[in-house]
Amino acid sequence: MNKNRQIVLASYVNDAALPENFALTEGPMPKPGKGEFLLRNMYFSMEPAIRGWVDGKANYLPPIPIGGVIRGPSVGQVITSHNKDFAEGDIVFALNQWEDYSVCHSDAILLKKLQPEADIPLSYYVGSLGGAGTTAYIGLHEVGLVKPGQTVVVSAAAGATGSMVGQIAKLCGCKVIGIVGSDTKAQLIIDQFGFDAAINYKTEDVTAAVIAIAPEGVDIYFDNVGGPVLNALLLAMNVYGRIVSCGMIADYNRTDNPNPITNLWEMVSRQLTMQGFLLPTYQDKVPAAMAQLEEWIRAGKITVLENITSGLASTPAAFCEMMSGKTVGKALVKVDWPVDD
Amino acid sequence: MNKNRQIVLASYVNDAALPENFALTEGPMPKPGKGEFLLRNMYFSMEPAIRGWVDGKANYLPPIPIGGVIRGPSVGQVITSHNKDFAEGDIVFALNQWEDYSVCHSDAILLKKLQPEADIPLSYYVGSLGGAGTTAYIGLHEVGLVKPGQTVVVSAAAGATGSMVGQIAKLCGCKVIGIVGSDTKAQLIIDQFGFDAAINYKTEDVTAAVIAIAPEGVDIYFDNVGGPVLNALLLAMNVYGRIVSCGMIADYNRTDNPNPITNLWEMVSRQLTMQGFLLPTYQDKVPAAMAQLEEWIRAGKITVLENITSGLASTPAAFCEMMSGKTVGKALVKVDWPVDD
Repeated sequence: MNKNRQIVLASYVNDAALPENFALTEGPMPKPGKGEFLLRNMYFSMEPAIRGWVDGKANYLPPIPIGGVIRGPSVGQVITSHNKDFAEGDIVFALNQWEDYSVCHSDAILLKKLQPEADIPLSYYVGSLGGAGTTAYIGLHEVGLVKPGQTVVVSAAAGATGSMVGQIAKLCGCKVIGIVGSDTKAQLIIDQFGFDAAINYKTEDVTAAVIAIAPEGVDIYFDNVGGPVLNALLLAMNVYGRIVSCGMIADYNRTDNPNPITNLWEMVSRQLTMQGFLLPTYQDKVPAAMAQLEEWIRAGKITVLENITSGLASTPAAFCEMMSGKTVGKALVKVDWPVDD
Repeated sequence: MNKNRQIVLASYVNDAALPENFALTEGPMPKPGKGEFLLRNMYFSMEPAIRGWVDGKANYLPPIPIGGVIRGPSVGQVITSHNKDFAEGDIVFALNQWEDYSVCHSDAILLKKLQPEADIPLSYYVGSLGGAGTTAYIGLHEVGLVKPGQTVVVSAAAGATGSMVGQIAKLCGCKVIGIVGSDTKAQLIIDQFGFDAAINYKTEDVTAAVIAIAPEGVDIYFDNVGGPVLNALLLAMNVYGRIVSCGMIADYNRTDNPNPITNLWEMVSRQLTMQGFLLPTYQDKVPAAMAQLEEWIRAGKITVLENITSGLASTPAAFCEMMSGKTVGKALVKVDWPVDD
């Protein structure tokens, strides 16, 4: 019988996540109970949301306890099933755990049986066709109510979700501006993802830069970061503009001392709408979003940039690297199995 | 020919508005041009929004210049008309100016020809059937999407808009909690307006108090104040809760240094919607709102509390008193005319 390697929480994360906040342990192979099925994990998706679960504080999901296995989206293959809807060999996306084998069931968060197309790499189903791509597509459409001709700004624009937001908005006929944290990323999002313009928030006055590029005003701000960039964007929004609150990375390492937002009067003055959203709420919209994204990817209309780390043991390092803001594109871990069978 | 007394801006308001920021002057009787009509003002509505126009800074309406007549909603009677839609004797609500006689036209902001009912005091059409009542009704319905059985919190709950929000929400079958700034007001909103509960934000921990009264979570927060009360409410909202951003009085006297909001992560975590609104955007919803409010007032289901100051010359004092937070109910000024005819 195989063993089950797991990444557990060694200590609560207070500031930036460090590899030593995590530990590799080994447990017995889990056994699926009635209605459950066992997955062999193939890919883990590195996502900023995980940072919100490792600090011991309540959030929209319960905090992971010390010694608990880290929760995160994965793509895996069914190897044993006691569930009539999932057969051996099926490929499944769901919120599982960082481990070789996960027990899953019909009510798992984000659960989706994949039908990966032969001409699309399976890893794409973790990112551009998984949480990042569907979050971008659904956030823009269901929350942003995107329309052709609008001006869209997205932060963390070189990241997994941001790069998809920009490309999808372009495909919807919008003018797209990306906010990033380096000149290299600014060049990248224009060259590789086709953004109309890029702003480096570390060196530029974001409000002034946005207004210079978009004097017509911003119709949709897809916000992945919160903090000072959100505060700056409030001053550049168009009347009736919409802010899609997808994440607030700027505060994830400072939950005890979040960045102050001082420009909320613009919510009234410009009659803005700010709406937070989490992907599981829109699970019924995922199939259509994936179908459209698959079509665009196959047609070469969307560029997917991946950042793949090999080996389950390297997962904490991959996560910390992604959270540092140094990486671009979709960060994921390819699980190195079979390990010992 | 009558003269036209006017209240003009003597100096920009920096902090709390003071009577000396205003001055009484006298001009000639204005003459309506083509398509215009002349109103004899009967009531001025004292509204916090006016504070946003007297500091010399850009807002959703242009700043009033030094020497400019103060802009504000009024109810007046048509005395001369060159507009086929408005006849001599008609009673009109619109964003006019603090003066005896205002020239008005078909495109005036908030313009509405009133058909005051004989059994309802005309002054009600300035407040409970004017900006305050329609703002409350339309904000709750069109922005808050109010439903029976929901829990609604409103700030500045003893004020003109807040007291209407609470009563309308009760009539919609909601549980209603009011946030006020004194124990006297707390008692008043329960006794006179039928709120289920009241919280004095100056002496209580607002988050804890709201959660104690509404452990089920707040579905709609009708926000008239912004600032620390908004920050506190973000921690007491229900998943998918809605924040109706109607005003931010807490910041009106400190536009250069607005209160920091630090709990916006809850927008994502609880999937909240915050939406700013201004009444003129919903002008087409006003007639139905007024009809419903008239019906409720006539049936004795809504209590109207008025705070009437007599005399145009007392308008600045009445406005400053209302802004101080010391008053309750709808503050308005009854213009003392005829003056010299």
